[in-house]
Amino acid sequence: MIKVGVVGYGTIGKRVADAVLIQDDMKLVGVTANTNNYKIETALRKNIPVFQIDEIHLLLNKVDIVVDCTPKGVGAANKELYIKSGIKAIFQGGEKTDVGASFVAQCNYDETIGEDFIRVVSCNTTGLCRTLQAINQRYGIDKVHATMIRRAADPWDIYHGPINALVPHLVVPSHHGPDVRAIIPDLEIFTTSISVPTTLMHMHSIAVDLNVAPTVDEAIELFENTIRVRVVHNSDGIRSTAEIMEYANDLGRSRGDMPEVCVWSDTIGAWGNKLLYMQAIHQESDVVPENIDAIRASMGSCSKDESMRLTNASMNI
Amino acid sequence: MIKVGVVGYGTIGKRVADAVLIQDDMKLVGVTANTNNYKIETALRKNIPVFQIDEIHLLLNKVDIVVDCTPKGVGAANKELYIKSGIKAIFQGGEKTDVGASFVAQCNYDETIGEDFIRVVSCNTTGLCRTLQAINQRYGIDKVHATMIRRAADPWDIYHGPINALVPHLVVPSHHGPDVRAIIPDLEIFTTSISVPTTLMHMHSIAVDLNVAPTVDEAIELFENTIRVRVVHNSDGIRSTAEIMEYANDLGRSRGDMPEVCVWSDTIGAWGNKLLYMQAIHQESDVVPENIDAIRASMGSCSKDESMRLTNASMNI
Amino acid sequence: MIKVGVVGYGTIGKRVADAVLIQDDMKLVGVTANTNNYKIETALRKNIPVFQIDEIHLLLNKVDIVVDCTPKGVGAANKELYIKSGIKAIFQGGEKTDVGASFVAQCNYDETIGEDFIRVVSCNTTGLCRTLQAINQRYGIDKVHATMIRRAADPWDIYHGPINALVPHLVVPSHHGPDVRAIIPDLEIFTTSISVPTTLMHMHSIAVDLNVAPTVDEAIELFENTIRVRVVHNSDGIRSTAEIMEYANDLGRSRGDMPEVCVWSDTIGAWGNKLLYMQAIHQESDVVPENIDAIRASMGSCSKDESMRLTNASMNI
Amino acid sequence: MIKVGVVGYGTIGKRVADAVLIQDDMKLVGVTANTNNYKIETALRKNIPVFQIDEIHLLLNKVDIVVDCTPKGVGAANKELYIKSGIKAIFQGGEKTDVGASFVAQCNYDETIGEDFIRVVSCNTTGLCRTLQAINQRYGIDKVHATMIRRAADPWDIYHGPINALVPHLVVPSHHGPDVRAIIPDLEIFTTSISVPTTLMHMHSIAVDLNVAPTVDEAIELFENTIRVRVVHNSDGIRSTAEIMEYANDLGRSRGDMPEVCVWSDTIGAWGNKLLYMQAIHQESDVVPENIDAIRASMGSCSKDESMRLTNASMNI
Repeated sequence: MIKVGVVGYGTIGKRVADAVLIQDDMKLVGVTANTNNYKIETALRKNIPVFQIDEIHLLLNKVDIVVDCTPKGVGAANKELYIKSGIKAIFQGGEKTDVGASFVAQCNYDETIGEDFIRVVSCNTTGLCRTLQAINQRYGIDKVHATMIRRAADPWDIYHGPINALVPHLVVPSHHGPDVRAIIPDLEIFTTSISVPTTLMHMHSIAVDLNVAPTVDEAIELFENTIRVRVVHNSDGIRSTAEIMEYANDLGRSRGDMPEVCVWSDTIGAWGNKLLYMQAIHQESDVVPENIDAIRASMGSCSKDESMRLTNASMNI
Repeated sequence: MIKVGVVGYGTIGKRVADAVLIQDDMKLVGVTANTNNYKIETALRKNIPVFQIDEIHLLLNKVDIVVDCTPKGVGAANKELYIKSGIKAIFQGGEKTDVGASFVAQCNYDETIGEDFIRVVSCNTTGLCRTLQAINQRYGIDKVHATMIRRAADPWDIYHGPINALVPHLVVPSHHGPDVRAIIPDLEIFTTSISVPTTLMHMHSIAVDLNVAPTVDEAIELFENTIRVRVVHNSDGIRSTAEIMEYANDLGRSRGDMPEVCVWSDTIGAWGNKLLYMQAIHQESDVVPENIDAIRASMGSCSKDESMRLTNASMNI
Repeated sequence: MIKVGVVGYGTIGKRVADAVLIQDDMKLVGVTANTNNYKIETALRKNIPVFQIDEIHLLLNKVDIVVDCTPKGVGAANKELYIKSGIKAIFQGGEKTDVGASFVAQCNYDETIGEDFIRVVSCNTTGLCRTLQAINQRYGIDKVHATMIRRAADPWDIYHGPINALVPHLVVPSHHGPDVRAIIPDLEIFTTSISVPTTLMHMHSIAVDLNVAPTVDEAIELFENTIRVRVVHNSDGIRSTAEIMEYANDLGRSRGDMPEVCVWSDTIGAWGNKLLYMQAIHQESDVVPENIDAIRASMGSCSKDESMRLTNASMNI
Repeated sequence: MIKVGVVGYGTIGKRVADAVLIQDDMKLVGVTANTNNYKIETALRKNIPVFQIDEIHLLLNKVDIVVDCTPKGVGAANKELYIKSGIKAIFQGGEKTDVGASFVAQCNYDETIGEDFIRVVSCNTTGLCRTLQAINQRYGIDKVHATMIRRAADPWDIYHGPINALVPHLVVPSHHGPDVRAIIPDLEIFTTSISVPTTLMHMHSIAVDLNVAPTVDEAIELFENTIRVRVVHNSDGIRSTAEIMEYANDLGRSRGDMPEVCVWSDTIGAWGNKLLYMQAIHQESDVVPENIDAIRASMGSCSKDESMRLTNASMNI
């Protein structure tokens, strides 16, 4: 049994804790909290031990590995604590790439086996890597241009806008390109992004210049055969990100999560050597199975295929 | 075992079906569908028998009672079918009051025992009745004025606006007052309403003229002791309808539902003989436990207290 | 000619400056800026002298009066500067009541004549005072309960949410009641408020307990005869705050402003001694004519009726 | 004086009527209405003759040319009326391409001189053509891929959603590509689009494969020198579509319109032979100057440069 602690009990932390609880090869030793609120109340209802943040050492002393789900930048600051405690750690994509080995399970699990510090890349980067890796292996990619249409705030976040505006991100290219290259080295990718007034999911509009001409049917089949990618269809009544979220609830997913990247079959286009498609990313959950796999990679307890199989089965993916 | 059919498998129908499935004294014989989409796909995954709408008679022949969750007006048209089949039926609040006995479990369960046709009132009326009944019994109500600030569309509904406007309903008073009087006779109540660009929950701003002067602490205690009412607190981090929905997900509620009416303790005010408060209503789920109780009331199988206890326990309310 | 300076060139400041420019009895000496942006660029295009904030004394030396339109709290801090410079000042409603005499032109212009420091109350308080003063004079008010349904951010403000939630204000009663009493002394008023995801206008749902029973037709006539109140009708295609804004643009109003409080005739209800109505408030502009009148009141240059007539005529109200 | 009628007095029609009123070489003979509402009321205030739709022949008898601004499909049905009346007509982009010669002034004015029937292409196509034509002339275009992030409803439109979802358009490629080719023949262009919950402006994320490698500075200069294109800058405080609209109001534009395509200098990227940029399109107004120019092109009264100069000067572009 891998003894796991979760540091930071917010959007990602509480989901990772839930996912650890349902792994047969892991034990959730506890989570940290730095305030008392409804999230902590529900943790206590589930009999999850909660450590106040000033008692984090009590947690660290009892675990093999922590998943650090603190806000951007805090994880890097915590790293020294983990080193002192002699434990391994998984970080999130808000941290810089040097905090640990960047990780997307289906792309580079094997290269991170035994690493003490692994960084699960951001929700957007994870989503890009899942489909681009598959395309790259199938066709060979010359160049990628992706526009990320980003949800401006999470559903629970009442503080951030905009309420009625489109906000282009004015750093071009955005950071997602280099972040993808931490997973798929040498991929030529240029990314731009824009925030829009919705809370549910991000969307990516992706154009890939290939070395050969693709067909739409091939691409649909490719995505259907790619793990943690789900092909959705207008003909099933799935027209929008809202209906994907409703579908996730209908499937009985915990918290209505959709960890798979969803590609609409109807948005796939082939045009000369270009392949175009749109995908939706559930920013709150797509990295959760990655964190579980990263634990096993770091501990060296399991092969890539076995870990992904166990994680998916437990989470009903 | 009460043999139950569900006619109409949308927002309410699928939730009622799920709730029937977890009652020990009920059996879900099947649901009807008039199209194939992701909702039906997930029903089939749960091994729920699905009857195409033109084969509804096959369903009706096998049940004691149906819960009709079809859109406004369709239920009344279906009533003749149910009469011909010799079965009982529960209707929703979109139907006119003459379709059956209006019903809110905690207010008038006993008066509807054995009724062949019961109408669960609308989500807003249900929410109003739960708190107003408690206040009326405790203090005696002289008059009520309620402004309903309504979510303009359900989360999955991408077709209705407004995107950025406030839309007063231009029938004054709105229909909710008479609807409440179908449950609490003779209550003087005047209601107005306004649609706003949100999908999560309705809010009610309520001013009650009492016969005596209330205190805030009394009112908090009253609501805490009222079944299917939940008092929420800013101090727990619950500031908004978004955080109520997040809380429901954290509690592990199916589909993230919150069937209880939520009153913020911080919004309760006492001012002379007036009591003022705000409550949030989850339009997708607050009538679901009512439908389950209405089945038992109609079948006469169970007392009010026993039915509400069973329903609440099964739904983790 | 009254020599006027405008300190703070944001949402209100730029509108006050424009309004000063079109008064025959006023001269706009200049405005202050503390950054360079498109707002300042357009001021310069209109040949408005712009003083950097560290050269404010150069502006103060040349004016009889300033309109301070700085953010909440800054005005009070600036007051000493104005005293030292021996000039009068108009403040906005974000300042505390002790900064100067609270002011709504149609309610208490005469009482503020000659005051060195006047505070134009907030947009919401201004809107409440306009209709409540008229009702109080016509009927005598016993009590008022108002729920303010507030736009969560201005149209240009991309930083504040919520995007999809309703946020009750958890101080009860809200500050608007005491603020109204600074204008209409001894009025019994209890206010609650809620923020909603829209940018265009606030809405007020108001219930007034009167000393006598009103009729709807009387109330419509009363509002039609009240200055700076506009009665709008569904039958003209004005269903929502969005259509009010469109109407203002069609009327050729500068910046699409609607300084009048708009009451929907269709929302007026009479119920025993209660009068109920809903009104929409354009938060960006309803105080602008008040600021112009406050200048004249402070300078003692003009009677109330004459000032309001001049202001309205110039602004096409 | 060109005698002009406007058929259809909605979002585009009322703007075209206003623009005709301020042309020295045109006379607005009247507009048609098929209902009475605030739009018609304001037309009458401006002394614009209004013809009920069943008296349209009275209008047609008095004009040289009509601008048909009716909803999609109605224009084509009206065409026969115009032919019978022996008058010319300008149609909007909702009509099919065969209704008349497709038109974007700066691209193909000369080719449409004297045409009896001209079709001003849609707001999105107009915006694409303005910048792509300039790029094509400067560099030579190999291929274009554009993702249109579309405002889901106009500001006044309270009926259409989504309120909180992203809705990909599930026809790929979208119709905009062929529509652009009606203006810039043989351009290789692939377009996809997505609706988002905002009302203010569309955004285009555009990737152009060129025959040579561009630089960012060249591209900025190119756009700055292109008519009806405005380069906007974060450093001026213009971060979003909301701030563009605020800027338009500050500029004193009628109805707060921004007929120019706005390109953020900060979104321009050069990457090998690719040029990437984002532009914002004010869907309510960018075609308005085009309609004015189309009138002159059809009448053959003026050269392209003269017409565009007159139109821009009158509208303060």
